[in-house]
Amino acid sequence: MNRRNQSNDYQCWLGYNKIQEQELLKYYRELLRTIVITGDTPVIKSAREELIKGIEGLTGIDPMIADAPEEKTFLIVVKSGNPYLDNLISKDILAKINEEGFLIKSVKRNGQQKIIITGKSDQGLLYGVFSFLRMIQMEKELDDIEIINNPVNSLRFINHWDNLDGSIERGYAGKSIFYNNNQLTDNLDRIIDYARLLASIGINSIVINNVNVHREETKLIDDKLDMVKKLADIFRNYGIKTFLSINFASPIELGGLSTADPLNSEVRKWWGYKVEDIYAEIPDFGGFLVKADSEHRPGPFTYKRNHAEGANMLAEELKPFGGILIWRCFVYNCQQDWRDYQTDRARAAYDNFKPLDGEFLENVILQVKNGPLDFQVREPVSPLFGAMGATNQFLELQITQEYTGQQRHLCYLVPQWKEVLDFDTYARGKGSTVKKVIAGSLFSQLYGGIAGVVNIGDDDNWTGHTLAQSNLYGFGRLTWNPDLSSGEITDEWVRLTFGNDPVVVETISQMLLDSWEIYENYTSPLGIGWMVNPNHHYGPNVDGYEYSRWGTYHRADHFGIGVDRSVKTGTAYAGQYFEENAIRYESIEFCPDELLLFFHHVPYIHQLKSGKTVIQHIYDSHFTGVEQAIVLKKKWEGLKDKIDEKRYSNILARLSEQVEHAKEWRDVINSYFYRKASIPDELDRKIY
Amino acid sequence: MNRRNQSNDYQCWLGYNKIQEQELLKYYRELLRTIVITGDTPVIKSAREELIKGIEGLTGIDPMIADAPEEKTFLIVVKSGNPYLDNLISKDILAKINEEGFLIKSVKRNGQQKIIITGKSDQGLLYGVFSFLRMIQMEKELDDIEIINNPVNSLRFINHWDNLDGSIERGYAGKSIFYNNNQLTDNLDRIIDYARLLASIGINSIVINNVNVHREETKLIDDKLDMVKKLADIFRNYGIKTFLSINFASPIELGGLSTADPLNSEVRKWWGYKVEDIYAEIPDFGGFLVKADSEHRPGPFTYKRNHAEGANMLAEELKPFGGILIWRCFVYNCQQDWRDYQTDRARAAYDNFKPLDGEFLENVILQVKNGPLDFQVREPVSPLFGAMGATNQFLELQITQEYTGQQRHLCYLVPQWKEVLDFDTYARGKGSTVKKVIAGSLFSQLYGGIAGVVNIGDDDNWTGHTLAQSNLYGFGRLTWNPDLSSGEITDEWVRLTFGNDPVVVETISQMLLDSWEIYENYTSPLGIGWMVNPNHHYGPNVDGYEYSRWGTYHRADHFGIGVDRSVKTGTAYAGQYFEENAIRYESIEFCPDELLLFFHHVPYIHQLKSGKTVIQHIYDSHFTGVEQAIVLKKKWEGLKDKIDEKRYSNILARLSEQVEHAKEWRDVINSYFYRKASIPDELDRKIY
Repeated sequence: MNRRNQSNDYQCWLGYNKIQEQELLKYYRELLRTIVITGDTPVIKSAREELIKGIEGLTGIDPMIADAPEEKTFLIVVKSGNPYLDNLISKDILAKINEEGFLIKSVKRNGQQKIIITGKSDQGLLYGVFSFLRMIQMEKELDDIEIINNPVNSLRFINHWDNLDGSIERGYAGKSIFYNNNQLTDNLDRIIDYARLLASIGINSIVINNVNVHREETKLIDDKLDMVKKLADIFRNYGIKTFLSINFASPIELGGLSTADPLNSEVRKWWGYKVEDIYAEIPDFGGFLVKADSEHRPGPFTYKRNHAEGANMLAEELKPFGGILIWRCFVYNCQQDWRDYQTDRARAAYDNFKPLDGEFLENVILQVKNGPLDFQVREPVSPLFGAMGATNQFLELQITQEYTGQQRHLCYLVPQWKEVLDFDTYARGKGSTVKKVIAGSLFSQLYGGIAGVVNIGDDDNWTGHTLAQSNLYGFGRLTWNPDLSSGEITDEWVRLTFGNDPVVVETISQMLLDSWEIYENYTSPLGIGWMVNPNHHYGPNVDGYEYSRWGTYHRADHFGIGVDRSVKTGTAYAGQYFEENAIRYESIEFCPDELLLFFHHVPYIHQLKSGKTVIQHIYDSHFTGVEQAIVLKKKWEGLKDKIDEKRYSNILARLSEQVEHAKEWRDVINSYFYRKASIPDELDRKIY
Repeated sequence: MNRRNQSNDYQCWLGYNKIQEQELLKYYRELLRTIVITGDTPVIKSAREELIKGIEGLTGIDPMIADAPEEKTFLIVVKSGNPYLDNLISKDILAKINEEGFLIKSVKRNGQQKIIITGKSDQGLLYGVFSFLRMIQMEKELDDIEIINNPVNSLRFINHWDNLDGSIERGYAGKSIFYNNNQLTDNLDRIIDYARLLASIGINSIVINNVNVHREETKLIDDKLDMVKKLADIFRNYGIKTFLSINFASPIELGGLSTADPLNSEVRKWWGYKVEDIYAEIPDFGGFLVKADSEHRPGPFTYKRNHAEGANMLAEELKPFGGILIWRCFVYNCQQDWRDYQTDRARAAYDNFKPLDGEFLENVILQVKNGPLDFQVREPVSPLFGAMGATNQFLELQITQEYTGQQRHLCYLVPQWKEVLDFDTYARGKGSTVKKVIAGSLFSQLYGGIAGVVNIGDDDNWTGHTLAQSNLYGFGRLTWNPDLSSGEITDEWVRLTFGNDPVVVETISQMLLDSWEIYENYTSPLGIGWMVNPNHHYGPNVDGYEYSRWGTYHRADHFGIGVDRSVKTGTAYAGQYFEENAIRYESIEFCPDELLLFFHHVPYIHQLKSGKTVIQHIYDSHFTGVEQAIVLKKKWEGLKDKIDEKRYSNILARLSEQVEHAKEWRDVINSYFYRKASIPDELDRKIY
């Protein structure tokens, strides 16, 4: 595919549009006329191509690529061992770069200004190049810079819920870019572009199929392994390792064995051969992701084995090849009786896994969803984080907007993720944040990182809602560095995607940063969650999950609403946290408003810390949410002359739908509670 | 397929099991040794085969078939013009037989007792044969009988909602027996058995595809016409005419025209040729059924034409061939705003069609669902019946149990249908029952009858729940003679299906006759309807259709529930009835309890005619309904030794599921209202 014919929305944040400011353009053209980038490994080749592509796009010049630095060369991209650096960059500085990190430094040599990009690995150079191009896109001055930039998380993971038939579980942007009709799609160029996008934000690992592994997908480790190999060949060029979701029952389904018992020697042998086969084809294969004993997926419980026994069996086979085994903690009773007030799905992950701390092999990572339920618009942080000091832990986030508007509503999730990452677990006293736990620094673990369920599909703009590209960008940037602020990330993304016009940057940034709160306002209130239509999860339905088997209840009656999860009178979920948090959540008095109904059942007339009653808060936030959605649309309309027509109208259409659908949310939620509680709105607004 | 290897549940009411009572067996064997049945038309051949099959099965003898009556011949099946009858049966009696009717009469000739079955048409003889076999199955004496039996309705119609891919819209008994993968299935023997079943209950017309005509089905009048021909060839042998559901937009989709405007001459010409093509292949083709301008189906509204213009255009083309055009009245706004209390879906059919009375050609029939909404467990009768004296009207019933338990719950619908048929419209004063309207006798119309959406599929027992066979049987019998009582039909069906053991007959009859009330008890109360999960319509969900676009609301709040459809304060739907009914439904005082919430919004504490409050009625009926479901199961268990294992266990499994699911209904409905109304159960039973 010819990049020059690609639309802005296809290119996302790698648009490399020509610098508009003429002085600056002249400055960059001067500097970037000749560049050196040495090496011919696949990753270096990718970096070189990207550099050329970027400079061409941004400056309009066709840079000379030299083999070795010359007098006038400005940009020099070399590995850290290169003798050219000897007198230019001190050993102390170089020592600060980690395996995947990079240094961008301006130096003077013979009075000539230069920029060095260096790192210990090919990936380091690639990330450095992307970072450098970002600086140009953002119109930074290049004098006097010294940037040492190391990824905080060793594993920066994308999870695909793609199925081989081309469908995507919880996909809202078209079909799979990988698969169609149980084959690879024929648009490999698009997959290359996708690898570029991922590498540019620091992603280094990808799981290429759905955690719910169905019949066809089970064969990916068998007679469909060539498909995996082809994808791995593409991603490898961008420093990305390929992983597979596997079916725990594969020894039965593929191997014809009568059992998949992890302690059975035939089963272990079968997996051993299977892993050998995979590594014979894909020597740098990453490993497996497993959803076991969850929502009807098979797992070790069938054989009265525990999760550690299940995971370790696989990890042992992967270990000789350097492979990793990722085991999901999304395990709960999905056949609950709604009449049962004792069983609490929120408790399940902790109850299932905490007792196993220390029993997992060192190449096993537990993947834990951010909250104890399932990617609701608001949940507390899972109490498992910090609770398993002897176990590698991954944070799983959902980039795809399942419960957060399905890419028809604007809901920028970076602020939500920041709250999760900055949440203090108190596992080892104050400052034991989730981001430290998962980076492996709190308990110094071998592996750690963040996995995100991706939001892309084969829509021309990748994400359905063009502004939803920001969630993928933000996810990548946070996995690289969870200390980046929401503001920084947002500013970067808007500039890279829509240019540096201050009005555009300010307007879109504000829209994004407000959007999560707006979405929360007109959807389900005060941390209670769910209130959506079953199965597809789009649109309001207060009782949608109330009388169901999924462990998802609000318990609203005429008097009040909420789930009592206190230790004293409820399910005792609050007691799963370390003391500081347990105390805070236990009492109605200390529990923060936004999570009140998650932890407590209170009367509608209970007064919140905001001073409002619960019912008035519900009414107010829903009326406000719609007003805010209208403002979002108006703000966007103000940018009409500053955005290309295609992206302008895509986003306008989505924002218009959002306004209409926010009204539906407002009216259904308000009517439901008004009809049930029979308490009038203090402001006497229209409720049906 | 060899009938002898067919299971009891496959054979339904045509099991022809050997008579157990030895005296009686001897008596039948004596009589049925030689029989005469003359003629070799396809329908007579079918009758002859059935007679042989029946006698063989019932008596174990292989009857001699003679060409002409001999001295000792007992059973003589001849057309009414046959000279043999000249001195045996008076002209007066023969004159009482209508075109499809029959006479079964015992006569003496030369001192020898004989039974004559005669009729004016081949079909008459076929129906007579089935009726005669029924008598034997029911162990009737054959002395001294004179039965003149004419069908009351000229058109006795089955509608299939089968799609060519094999799926069945609202099918609960497997896949289509006609289609698979856009082809005819290869099990034509099964279709022949199906034709036998239909003919045995008097069905004479069948629509072989879904009223929602999708892409592939549109081609049935075009390059897939051979499929129609093959089915018509089978059904013709059993006196059944074949009809098609058609796509009103066919001239565009098939013909490449730019319009389907019914007044456009090219469109009319296109349909003219199309009809000619069909009749060239199938000279006795029945005609078309059309769902137009309903639930997103195309229709004349697109071209600003009315339904009469749409229907007449097609009827005119069919007329020269004797074809009939059936036009459905299921037309309403399916994009309603739930906030809108003025629009009332219940009004729609009357509002749309009443003004067109007299404008339809004489070979057009309007097909009207029994109630104004959509086959709920309880609805008033549609006010259209009797309101269009100058128009042919069909009653549409749903044999398939969409809203009535989907053939997992026992819900015998004959009592419901009887209420509809016996409903007095007062169109021409007292006694203007629905059954007279649709038979064409009230206004003496050319065509009339009943159409039933069938409940069969390729499950071995045809209907999923074996007892649901009774609904198909009962439907057929009522189309033939709507004056039959529920008790008579039930008694017949049980005897034919399970034999004549009095305990079996009594037990199963009672189970069937109680089942509709039981199902109503634990589902949606007092005529309000809907309260089901959206789309699939199975299981309780009080708000399932409350905030939706389908015009289906209960308007429940803290104080009360129901839809005000009075003229005085509501949507004025009640005013669509003739005065006697309008007055009854208009006032809360006169409105019958079981329809109260359909017509009125009342407080939960409103006292019903039963003396109970609405809320207490809801609680009581739901607790009672579960108790009754348990009794159903117990009754069945009492028959363990009297029913073959396969049918016993099929039905037991369904009844067990029914009990469990009835509890779910009870608890969800009671909890919903208890939580909302906050009025305790007087008996303090467990509500969640």
